[in-house]
Amino acid sequence: MTNRLARLLPIAGWLRDYQGQTFVSDALAAVIVTLMLVPQALAYALLAGLPPEVGLYASMLPLVAYAVFGTSATLAVGPVAVASLMTASALGGIAQAGSPEYVGAALVLAALSGLILFGMGLLRLGFLANFLSHPVISGFVTASGILIAGSQLGHILGIQGGGHNLLAMVQGLLSQLDRINPITLTIGGGALVFLYLCRTFLKRGLVGLGMGERLADLTAKAAPVTAVMVTTAVAWVFELGAKGVNLVGEVPSGLPDIALPSLAPDIWATLLPAAVLISLVGFVESVSVAQTLAAKRRQRIDPNAELIALGLANMTAGVSGGSPVSGGFSRSVVNFEAGAQTPVAGALTAVGIAVATLTLTGLLAFLPKATLAATIIIAVSTLIDLPAIRRTLSYSKSDGAAMLATILLTLGQGVEAGIVVGVVLSIGLHLYRTSRPHSAVVGRMPGTEHFRNVQRHEVEVDDCTVVLRVDESLYFANARYLEETVLQLVSDHPLMKNLVLACQAVNDIDASALESLEAINRRLSDAGIRLHLAEVKGPVMDCLKRTPFCDELTGQVFLSTYDAWKALVTTADGFLKTG
Amino acid sequence: MTNRLARLLPIAGWLRDYQGQTFVSDALAAVIVTLMLVPQALAYALLAGLPPEVGLYASMLPLVAYAVFGTSATLAVGPVAVASLMTASALGGIAQAGSPEYVGAALVLAALSGLILFGMGLLRLGFLANFLSHPVISGFVTASGILIAGSQLGHILGIQGGGHNLLAMVQGLLSQLDRINPITLTIGGGALVFLYLCRTFLKRGLVGLGMGERLADLTAKAAPVTAVMVTTAVAWVFELGAKGVNLVGEVPSGLPDIALPSLAPDIWATLLPAAVLISLVGFVESVSVAQTLAAKRRQRIDPNAELIALGLANMTAGVSGGSPVSGGFSRSVVNFEAGAQTPVAGALTAVGIAVATLTLTGLLAFLPKATLAATIIIAVSTLIDLPAIRRTLSYSKSDGAAMLATILLTLGQGVEAGIVVGVVLSIGLHLYRTSRPHSAVVGRMPGTEHFRNVQRHEVEVDDCTVVLRVDESLYFANARYLEETVLQLVSDHPLMKNLVLACQAVNDIDASALESLEAINRRLSDAGIRLHLAEVKGPVMDCLKRTPFCDELTGQVFLSTYDAWKALVTTADGFLKTG
Repeated sequence: MTNRLARLLPIAGWLRDYQGQTFVSDALAAVIVTLMLVPQALAYALLAGLPPEVGLYASMLPLVAYAVFGTSATLAVGPVAVASLMTASALGGIAQAGSPEYVGAALVLAALSGLILFGMGLLRLGFLANFLSHPVISGFVTASGILIAGSQLGHILGIQGGGHNLLAMVQGLLSQLDRINPITLTIGGGALVFLYLCRTFLKRGLVGLGMGERLADLTAKAAPVTAVMVTTAVAWVFELGAKGVNLVGEVPSGLPDIALPSLAPDIWATLLPAAVLISLVGFVESVSVAQTLAAKRRQRIDPNAELIALGLANMTAGVSGGSPVSGGFSRSVVNFEAGAQTPVAGALTAVGIAVATLTLTGLLAFLPKATLAATIIIAVSTLIDLPAIRRTLSYSKSDGAAMLATILLTLGQGVEAGIVVGVVLSIGLHLYRTSRPHSAVVGRMPGTEHFRNVQRHEVEVDDCTVVLRVDESLYFANARYLEETVLQLVSDHPLMKNLVLACQAVNDIDASALESLEAINRRLSDAGIRLHLAEVKGPVMDCLKRTPFCDELTGQVFLSTYDAWKALVTTADGFLKTG
Repeated sequence: MTNRLARLLPIAGWLRDYQGQTFVSDALAAVIVTLMLVPQALAYALLAGLPPEVGLYASMLPLVAYAVFGTSATLAVGPVAVASLMTASALGGIAQAGSPEYVGAALVLAALSGLILFGMGLLRLGFLANFLSHPVISGFVTASGILIAGSQLGHILGIQGGGHNLLAMVQGLLSQLDRINPITLTIGGGALVFLYLCRTFLKRGLVGLGMGERLADLTAKAAPVTAVMVTTAVAWVFELGAKGVNLVGEVPSGLPDIALPSLAPDIWATLLPAAVLISLVGFVESVSVAQTLAAKRRQRIDPNAELIALGLANMTAGVSGGSPVSGGFSRSVVNFEAGAQTPVAGALTAVGIAVATLTLTGLLAFLPKATLAATIIIAVSTLIDLPAIRRTLSYSKSDGAAMLATILLTLGQGVEAGIVVGVVLSIGLHLYRTSRPHSAVVGRMPGTEHFRNVQRHEVEVDDCTVVLRVDESLYFANARYLEETVLQLVSDHPLMKNLVLACQAVNDIDASALESLEAINRRLSDAGIRLHLAEVKGPVMDCLKRTPFCDELTGQVFLSTYDAWKALVTTADGFLKTG
């Protein structure tokens, strides 16, 4: 009973044993993550084309919802870069960025993503995320990183950015080069250089000055806070807002209202495809981060419970004024390294953001948008993983093709086209590969019971008995190919009397393949050849026994290839050596 | 050179050796097929909602085109039942059946199907047809047969039929029951009973009267000609046209004009999805028939050459006033049994149809449509294969589900929805099956080098060395599942020191699965367990060698599971028996 409750409501599992010592660790981690999250929440709202408070609201109640239902102790939920880019892309066609309709649609998008994730969790559909292959995800994240960086260049230059693909962005920037604001460029460029130097050298420098490794690392990661404070102060003192520098502007002080998002069916229908993609990508990223961190402490997370927790977090975002959320990679790592022990750290982070919203909004009004753009560019530069592209290309042509297609389409057409084509292409290429399966005529390794490919090994073969090892499950896409392979084999071996299909690699025979096997059996019988099976697996044999095929089979079913060899190859046939 | 020419232009291969004797065989077959094709051409035009001459035109020049480029000696090309139903469904939303726009769209559909087939042939995409699995095709053909029979009931009753799904048809018929024409019903019902009796008893009766088996069979198959002649004569003598019996009406005498079909881009775009489906279904049916017949004479056909030939035949139909064509099952069998030796039989059939069109159209004007409807109903009754449904359901749940979905959607929503959902569902179910692969801990069969599942066989196992046989290729959809399986195994075997992955069933490891294997290797290493691989196939090993994985692997790669067993299981560990 207790176990079942803990599965439905993870908080019930760990809260009983919660101790004061754990609270201190969690609270410390929460302070550090809050410092990191305040500028990120504002920046990702900027990236999504939303007012800054939407990012802050997405960093409060959704974190509490995740803390109650999530199974990861360290996953830091909130607005993230890729989901913000996808949000901007989904809402761009619906309303003017920043308008009330635009914000309303963002809440619908969060609620809809939440319902989708929650529903997938109830139906235990977590496996659907497996169809986003590593190369597709990796290519998509790299291309998204490039798009995000490109979308922020306008803010650094003080001109209007925009466009949901690389070409539109470049065109937009080039057409406005005469309108660059030099003060904005100075602030944005300065922040960019400062953040880059902090990321690259600060940690090493602090360690050189005698600071502990972990503390130095966390200090370096707090650099964006420094940039925010300094540039805010500069903008306030020199009244840069009056000089054409875009500032964040007034942020409503106070906590979000709780209200249902718009229930207009046409907006929900319009946003559905984008919500599905945001849900899947957010889930895959969250689970990867959570599993990686859990494995380091020998903990497990439950993907279907994560779906429910992320679903509830997004639904909470939708009713509390927030944009879609998922587990962020860099914040989760910081949370982990700062010593978060339980989801309480996440709940305390929400409290920290609430305090910041109540107290700091007067100051944040003077924060230059260029500073936020600089923090985004530095943050997403870690998403761009060019070595992974090279590695994938060198390992497998078809994985590489799916990855390149994802990257090029994401850059050229936008995020939706990129990920959809990537998924369809990787499934299509997989089906294509399995539709022309590898098969090999095998012979006996001398003195053993082991059989290997005659073209790769010195093995014994026999003219009358040919053993064909089929290296793929037999199903509709390759059933006809098997028929053709066997017909070719028959014409290549005029003396053949027995054909043994070695089925150790055949994990499944579907109804189409069964019909093909029946056709092969009949055709071989016409040609005076008996068909035998060897090493048929238990589950496959169970299936075949339910059909008349085993009775119609002209030959036998052998337990092992060696049994078939012993029974069919007599010494009178003589052995032949081949190389 | 000659071989290559014969591959590009099959007629060049066989025409050199063509002899008088062969011509006599081909001509005889052509006469019999012509007798069968005249009523079928008219009937399938009726089914497609087209004027009768369109069916006749589709039976002339397209047959000549196929004779020049086809690789099957006996495939009888022309209008067929399922393609005619699909044509009616595709054109139903575009124009009023029988109107000039409707006929024009039918020509576009033929030309477009031809271009698609031709293009697939050039790109050697014949394998795409493999994705129409046997259960989906079989279910689709059965449901189409029911729809076709339903669509013809109106003609038998003398009322307006129509509707592209079963519900609409039944509703349409029920609402007009008061308008049934008793004379039409007498003719249609009489023809139906006559044709049924001929099909069921005539052949046996003729054999009983001393006629040869083959001749009796062909005579029975000519029964529709008799029905056509008798009912035409009755309609003429009794002037049934004036009494409310629908007759075929005036058929333009003469040969078709050669003209390009409409080139309006919007019609082409609208018809594209339907053309793709008609092409694929027609191709699959044609190739199945052609391969079955070719195998009986130990001949081969070339699927990609068939694509080109069928493509050219359909393009020819599009420019010579015909509807889409493909290889018909029953006519091809008759052609084969009547002794057709080469594609010349097909060309001579075209001549026969041309002669009929030039001489018989005056008479055909008096042919009652009810007679044609009766021939269609009897012809498609062979398409309805209920035992195949039962067989598929009992063999495999997922194949059965795909088949049932195809049948129900075809009947309930129409042909396009049925086949598309069937294909998507069969691919989805296949991916789902392979995303949760079977795996088994295996042990050694005592005294052999053979390893089997510990849960199915009495085998020797060892506490320190666990052998896991993975029964599926490793790819993105199941990579994460493997990680979970291995983690579970580790927690179930506290004494484990070595894990051997037996890879005889692993036909492919893609980039996603490689990353999972690397993760498994690292995690096992943390737990003090070495990871070994055994029986890795040549092509898979070639791939792995291109990566750092083999260097990082904590254990070894063994040629066979037995080699791994010998090296890792020492007698000191002691053997355990399990059942």
